[in-house]
Amino acid sequence: MSTAAAEYRLSTPERLANFIRVVLGKVDIDPADAAIVADVLVASDVRGIESHGVARLESYYVNRLRNREIEARPKVATVRETDTSILVDAGNGLGHPVAKRTMEKVIAKAREHGAAFGTVRNSNHYGIAGYYAMLGLEHDLVGMSSTNTVRLAAPTFGRESMLGTNPFAYAIPAGEEPPFVLDFATTTVPRGKLEVYARKNESLAPGWAIDAQGIETLDPQIALNGALLPLGGAAVDDGGHKGYGLGLLADILCGVLSAGKFGAALPLAGAAPVAGPVSHWFAAFRIDGFRDVAEFKRDMDVELRGFKNSAKAPGHERIYVAGEIEHENTLRHRAEGVPVHVSIWAGLEKLAAELGVPFDIARV
Amino acid sequence: MSTAAAEYRLSTPERLANFIRVVLGKVDIDPADAAIVADVLVASDVRGIESHGVARLESYYVNRLRNREIEARPKVATVRETDTSILVDAGNGLGHPVAKRTMEKVIAKAREHGAAFGTVRNSNHYGIAGYYAMLGLEHDLVGMSSTNTVRLAAPTFGRESMLGTNPFAYAIPAGEEPPFVLDFATTTVPRGKLEVYARKNESLAPGWAIDAQGIETLDPQIALNGALLPLGGAAVDDGGHKGYGLGLLADILCGVLSAGKFGAALPLAGAAPVAGPVSHWFAAFRIDGFRDVAEFKRDMDVELRGFKNSAKAPGHERIYVAGEIEHENTLRHRAEGVPVHVSIWAGLEKLAAELGVPFDIARV
Repeated sequence: MSTAAAEYRLSTPERLANFIRVVLGKVDIDPADAAIVADVLVASDVRGIESHGVARLESYYVNRLRNREIEARPKVATVRETDTSILVDAGNGLGHPVAKRTMEKVIAKAREHGAAFGTVRNSNHYGIAGYYAMLGLEHDLVGMSSTNTVRLAAPTFGRESMLGTNPFAYAIPAGEEPPFVLDFATTTVPRGKLEVYARKNESLAPGWAIDAQGIETLDPQIALNGALLPLGGAAVDDGGHKGYGLGLLADILCGVLSAGKFGAALPLAGAAPVAGPVSHWFAAFRIDGFRDVAEFKRDMDVELRGFKNSAKAPGHERIYVAGEIEHENTLRHRAEGVPVHVSIWAGLEKLAAELGVPFDIARV
Repeated sequence: MSTAAAEYRLSTPERLANFIRVVLGKVDIDPADAAIVADVLVASDVRGIESHGVARLESYYVNRLRNREIEARPKVATVRETDTSILVDAGNGLGHPVAKRTMEKVIAKAREHGAAFGTVRNSNHYGIAGYYAMLGLEHDLVGMSSTNTVRLAAPTFGRESMLGTNPFAYAIPAGEEPPFVLDFATTTVPRGKLEVYARKNESLAPGWAIDAQGIETLDPQIALNGALLPLGGAAVDDGGHKGYGLGLLADILCGVLSAGKFGAALPLAGAAPVAGPVSHWFAAFRIDGFRDVAEFKRDMDVELRGFKNSAKAPGHERIYVAGEIEHENTLRHRAEGVPVHVSIWAGLEKLAAELGVPFDIARV
């Protein structure tokens, strides 16, 4: 991520979170809910995942609340619950608060019973999947999460957008090393990458996208009217059916298991919104169901260092493990400030003026 | 899969299984253990996954038993067990029996408590991961399995083989449709594919493999002395870090969680064998922890048919869902016989003669 001074301005986690809370309060979000949304969005920016952080505050959340496409005060209901499972209906509210509270219940169940799973239906975009998986880390649990999303990717041999970016996230604690946090979309690239390439008028790489007829294309404008490809690309030989299978797995675990929306019932990206479009999935289990936690963490350090210290390919000085870059971003951004792109910054300033709230996110 | 009469001969599931049981009996495998190995290997051939079935009987199992690299009569021990977890030490025995019995215990725990996880360490190759995930289907459970394997793939930005093909499998029941069974290696292609291309003297595709220096190569001979690439290929832009992350996840869930071998402690593919090289991971949870099973299965049919009926790309008449091709193979091979490549057939005939057992696998 480039953080050249000309393109970015610096905020802090606290100021960004406070601003988000105040903004959401202006569109009738309960303070406790707003605090959770702020925590998830700021975590994204702090981890260096700019696309899923404060950049989405207006378009993904505030505007949809103002348009009453998302319920500000949803009726959240537990639909079914056992010692090791929970299904929650989000009442078409914001995804983050119900997702965090459901994962917390999954964690409590896993702490008491060893393992638990959870789903949320009738929800909205919940930010980064990794946030929820990571909630288990401090409890010495393995945490997992997934969500389905608006449709923008075609199945292998297809041309119709049937799948979202449908990410999976896994978080596993280590000892002295940062935790292993794998959080990935099951498409090769996100749709935002096509938009960036279109603006720069650059060619896409193979395996990223198809045109509306279902033929692979390297033209970003044509791809934006077509569909993304699953991780692995268009061909079975290159493993595209694996990314497609993972994307469909996410749709089943989230949408079908929760009796939420799935498959073609989910809206297409860019289409008119529907109520409660997406569903989420969570899991957690105790590490000490298998071995002593201290020994596990010691071996996790051995494992992660083994990969990091293995021989490098030409032109590469480091091998990373999942979550390592985001951990380094977190340390840097907490110490030096959180970079916000000037275009996002200007948008937030305009939003503050519209809502009549102070705009005081700048690091001082 | 080509099953041209000239290249394949037909056996039956029963005759193949009986032959495997008799052969394994000759190398001192307990009859109950031999029956499980036979069931797993035949399931692979029946599903059309020739690479993991009877083709491996001699090289993966019988020879290693004869060389005492695998214990014929292992001391299998439960190391730790709770209501929702189990860790088993396989005593360097064959992987299939201990894996099946451990997944059966995970299933029993999940049926009673809603969710459970299991691991096996100090084990050997267990065949297709999907076999174990599918054991939960008849109990209306979601089943999962993974294993680590001998090392043959490099991490993103690396050149050293640190990862195996490390597959993940997920099985989810449907109603009238075949179950969703996703079973995939976390490398782009299996090593066997490089060997096939080398024999045919054909170029590899990009994203499959690197040379010993870590540079991507399309030459299958050079690739065989290099390393496979994770699903997604060499570049982060193409999602190679996602396949790498999944492969490392498998190594952690299997090897680290079980206190088994992980990372560089696993043998390289083709290197001298070590005792109990690999570990396995299992999970299962109840669908009715979330919703009524009949309704879930009805919606699974809607989901799977929705994908199958979605618009096709040019040149494609069908869109498949994971496990569908293997289900159709199963129906056909049970009715019409199991095709065994003539080179495999000849090897089995030679093995039968060596061991002094009847060779009667031909369908009559």
